[in-house]
Amino acid sequence: MACPSRFAASLRRATCAPRTFQHATRRLRPVIQARWQGNEATTSASSEPHQPDEQGGVKGDTAKAKAIKFTSESYPELKRDPKFSEISSEHVKFFKDLLGSESAVIDGLSSDASEDIEPFNADWMRKYRGHTKLVLKPGSTEEVSKILKYCNDNTLAVVPQGGNTGLVGGSVPVFDEIVINLSRMNSIRSFDEVSGILVADAGVILEVADNFLAEKSHIFPLDLGAKGSCQIGGNVATNAGGLRLLRYGSLHGNVLGIEAVLPDGTIVDDLSKLRKNNTGYDIKQLFIGGEGTIGIITAISIFCPQRSPAINAAYFGLSSFEKVQQAFREAKAQLSEILSAFELMDGRSQKLLHKASGRKLPLEGEHPFYCLIETSGSNSDHDSEKLEAFLEHVMGEEIVDDGVVAQDQTQIADLWACREGVPECLGHWGGVYKYDLSIPIGELYAIVEETRERIKKAGLMGNSDEYPVVDVVGYGHMGDANLHLNVSVRRYDKKVEKELEPFVYEWVAKRNGSISAEHGLGIAKKAFIGYSRSETMIRLMKQIKELYDPKGIMNPYKYI
Amino acid sequence: MACPSRFAASLRRATCAPRTFQHATRRLRPVIQARWQGNEATTSASSEPHQPDEQGGVKGDTAKAKAIKFTSESYPELKRDPKFSEISSEHVKFFKDLLGSESAVIDGLSSDASEDIEPFNADWMRKYRGHTKLVLKPGSTEEVSKILKYCNDNTLAVVPQGGNTGLVGGSVPVFDEIVINLSRMNSIRSFDEVSGILVADAGVILEVADNFLAEKSHIFPLDLGAKGSCQIGGNVATNAGGLRLLRYGSLHGNVLGIEAVLPDGTIVDDLSKLRKNNTGYDIKQLFIGGEGTIGIITAISIFCPQRSPAINAAYFGLSSFEKVQQAFREAKAQLSEILSAFELMDGRSQKLLHKASGRKLPLEGEHPFYCLIETSGSNSDHDSEKLEAFLEHVMGEEIVDDGVVAQDQTQIADLWACREGVPECLGHWGGVYKYDLSIPIGELYAIVEETRERIKKAGLMGNSDEYPVVDVVGYGHMGDANLHLNVSVRRYDKKVEKELEPFVYEWVAKRNGSISAEHGLGIAKKAFIGYSRSETMIRLMKQIKELYDPKGIMNPYKYI
Repeated sequence: MACPSRFAASLRRATCAPRTFQHATRRLRPVIQARWQGNEATTSASSEPHQPDEQGGVKGDTAKAKAIKFTSESYPELKRDPKFSEISSEHVKFFKDLLGSESAVIDGLSSDASEDIEPFNADWMRKYRGHTKLVLKPGSTEEVSKILKYCNDNTLAVVPQGGNTGLVGGSVPVFDEIVINLSRMNSIRSFDEVSGILVADAGVILEVADNFLAEKSHIFPLDLGAKGSCQIGGNVATNAGGLRLLRYGSLHGNVLGIEAVLPDGTIVDDLSKLRKNNTGYDIKQLFIGGEGTIGIITAISIFCPQRSPAINAAYFGLSSFEKVQQAFREAKAQLSEILSAFELMDGRSQKLLHKASGRKLPLEGEHPFYCLIETSGSNSDHDSEKLEAFLEHVMGEEIVDDGVVAQDQTQIADLWACREGVPECLGHWGGVYKYDLSIPIGELYAIVEETRERIKKAGLMGNSDEYPVVDVVGYGHMGDANLHLNVSVRRYDKKVEKELEPFVYEWVAKRNGSISAEHGLGIAKKAFIGYSRSETMIRLMKQIKELYDPKGIMNPYKYI
Repeated sequence: MACPSRFAASLRRATCAPRTFQHATRRLRPVIQARWQGNEATTSASSEPHQPDEQGGVKGDTAKAKAIKFTSESYPELKRDPKFSEISSEHVKFFKDLLGSESAVIDGLSSDASEDIEPFNADWMRKYRGHTKLVLKPGSTEEVSKILKYCNDNTLAVVPQGGNTGLVGGSVPVFDEIVINLSRMNSIRSFDEVSGILVADAGVILEVADNFLAEKSHIFPLDLGAKGSCQIGGNVATNAGGLRLLRYGSLHGNVLGIEAVLPDGTIVDDLSKLRKNNTGYDIKQLFIGGEGTIGIITAISIFCPQRSPAINAAYFGLSSFEKVQQAFREAKAQLSEILSAFELMDGRSQKLLHKASGRKLPLEGEHPFYCLIETSGSNSDHDSEKLEAFLEHVMGEEIVDDGVVAQDQTQIADLWACREGVPECLGHWGGVYKYDLSIPIGELYAIVEETRERIKKAGLMGNSDEYPVVDVVGYGHMGDANLHLNVSVRRYDKKVEKELEPFVYEWVAKRNGSISAEHGLGIAKKAFIGYSRSETMIRLMKQIKELYDPKGIMNPYKYI
């Protein structure tokens, strides 16, 4: 890594003034975020994760897909619901006639196509695999409507599928549910440069949308590692959080309208292009985070803010979580409107990153905690001045022990790599147990310490091969109180699992936290919703499911 | 008005540098926004609008309240639904026993209390008046639950009431619905200074919440004229938009949790204090903008941003709506993260303001359009520099013809008075027909011109008393594409109404706009929802109403 300007308590000021960047393009992030996810430890992590292709489809790679264990075997308690019809050649004929094009129907019933279908059955983490025999790729909302109506009339179960980049198994079938893949619906319908409102098909790749907006000096108010593959419809269906939430807020606020299709074929035509519209219940909100269980989103309209031309980043070391909280409070106060990220990595996660990848860390010495902050604003001089003043202050007050400020775009990318390289490196020794938690910010890190103590006490963690656990680490989006608790292991071990669960979920429940901050429920978290939601809330949710999908054909065996 | 620094095309630069303000407190806005609202012209506007008191209650003023025409007379097509029970002394006894305190029950059945009840029957615009005989003021969520369960079991209709500052008659009864007034539930439950998350009872006055947050350097992400009286529960129930939406986004994004009570007494305990929680359908969203028709909000948790210490304001004149759009685009680009308001006033609205109030306008000469922009940020020098650069640019490019920048807090208030004084002044000649519209931004002003042409052509507008119409003007929140179309009249006249409706609604519907951008439906807009929502959406909304309130006791005769 080149030499970013350094500041230390003894120095009180960056030795060389930080440079800033006009029209810096956003750094590329690795699509691969994690090798293993969830709480099931029966499938061992592969060293070659299966990645969705650029189109968001999951073509080819059949051999790899076939090596993945079936979800029905990993979750033997799940049984195929006999109420669902089995797919017949008559059904397939209907869909072929409807969709016309050969490429729009992948028919696993006929032997020549059965190879092509496997990639649609499996998720990119190689953890979930279904038994579908039919993939449909509608080209229009009307086609989606006709497909769903037919499926509903014939009690055929379906799974909506976007870029298939989810982390909880929500977008692949469990048994023989028909996959409805949105990748062919990939047009940007309109963009208004004055209001910043974009209307686009659900199948548009997030990065495509963001690049389109970048040309018009706007930004998609969501950013995440899988942006090169994930689709905006899937993002909305899973209420993706990601890296810009601190600055731009959640999709519940930014999504202005939705076009969706209900199981009975009804087209929910709520594609408003207005920032304000107080005319009745905001029903579209149920589809945001509904994970395809009450309908399929076919298009969205979304408010996109002005893109900030100036980007800065700084990385610093701190001695305690108390200090991290102080630094966050100061950043909010002093960087305020230009603060666009405040990410947390504990010292152990940075140490493992260095060990696994050989990456030289930006700071010498060891610190118990590290933070990465990013600013983005409209004036690079102003932003640099604010950032410098902030850093001087936190150094002077001894909130921060040491730090660096990026000097150019490469250095920004290098600093981000220290945060973004963490999820992947933790799998280096064999596997990772991963938890995506929301916890009231004051106690955010306590779960990591308590879990580590617990694992140590049980004699499961150590430096040699006899111990399954390498380390227990924490990192995440401090700005959103969203912690990723990760347990890096040499091998999956029932003894480790027993220490982790239900301990982690109970700990989070006691603090009214969330067992799924941003990843959603899917199949992975379905059983654990009770730790984050009351019986009343679950009952009300089931009412909604029953209201919109009385026959239960939408994404069964998942969610609630 | 003192002398704000002036800039003109010939000048290219403010003659004296604009000053900025540390910890400027927010200017006070008049609670009285409009004298007459909606589309019914049978009630003539009073010169003394009925204002809610500081507690958000509406005590005293019985004589005035009695002078207001009953809604049941203004809307003769509305009939009391005979399925609802009439209030008996037995019911009253139950509520008195339940709520204990004498002051918590205003019993209009007993003659000595019948005077006190009138203010709860009438809205502050003096446009709507009900016939209730019973007002309940619960002190806890449990009491709300017991009240609603009893009402549901006994088929007693209810109206939830907050500060009673709404503009569409949603918070007062039509017939003898029981008023459930939330003013006694007025505690701030918690605030976390690190995360900025506030939890408070529904009955907390908006300004009380904001003042509490100001002491902690945070801001309530909503601001509106009625802040001194309106309650945060009512704000959420009506999805209030207001003056900070451009900067902080809508309540759908900022409200993190809700506690509400369903008609059957179920307590919806969704008072999450987490920014991220992807565990199931986001049911609380249905209550945001649900206008008390499916349940009563008893508490909210909300994300509150850091308060900006530096505030600036500028006011300028432009020659066309094309230029207004250009100026808005430039403001978004150059002021970006510090832009906190971009308000539009047409020249005619400013002229009427001057005529009605005698207020001297900040600019000499006449301009077809005026804009007021406000910036708020963390560094006053930076903000001033950005604002100055922006003004130089828009002057240099001849986008803006002339302008002033406020030099101090008094001048900021004076500039705002030019925007905020408009709604009231338009009633000066007798009354106003008001429409609160969302329109795609490019056509935002066309409705004003077309409506004016139409009224002129019909021979209804002119300078002497023989013409009912004084002028047709437009103003509003340019940043949110939210236009207030106002027709200032000397007297209400059926001929004028015939020119306005359904013309305005049809015009808006053709452009997929909204007939109620921020005010809600209530009773005023109920009949017109079809202009902004499809039959499908209305059907889906009715399903939701049926699901949560099968007996229809919640705020009947309104909404959808």
